[in-house]
Amino acid sequence: MLKNGVLDPQGKAIGHALESLGFEGVGEVRQGKVIELELASSDRNAAEAEIDQMCQRLLANTVIENYTIEIEE
Amino acid sequence: MLKNGVLDPQGKAIGHALESLGFEGVGEVRQGKVIELELASSDRNAAEAEIDQMCQRLLANTVIENYTIEIEE
Repeated sequence: MLKNGVLDPQGKAIGHALESLGFEGVGEVRQGKVIELELASSDRNAAEAEIDQMCQRLLANTVIENYTIEIEE
Repeated sequence: MLKNGVLDPQGKAIGHALESLGFEGVGEVRQGKVIELELASSDRNAAEAEIDQMCQRLLANTVIENYTIEIEE
């Protein structure tokens, strides 16, 4: 997700579109992305550390984006 | 997320980029989007029904995408 304070024009556009479709009570809308990947690893901690590296080096733009990691086994 | 069986070129590109950065054991990668919105509603069931309508009418392309709804209070 974009960090708080970073303008999210896509989110704003979605919010306006929902309003014009008649949905009421919609406040702030933010759009982000989700990346699902399969990892051949049996060590949960090692997997989390590796994914964190992936986020830092490729998946997230940490200047403007936050990221969270969820692991399913 | 794109439905299973729908080609995801963005996911494939991410997978290749991770490989060329030296990350090993990366299997299938899929990219999707997440939309966070604030809703002025005190009724959890009503909120979920409304969000489902939003997904059907605007947020998701149900021909090629699946969606899940999570509500935080």
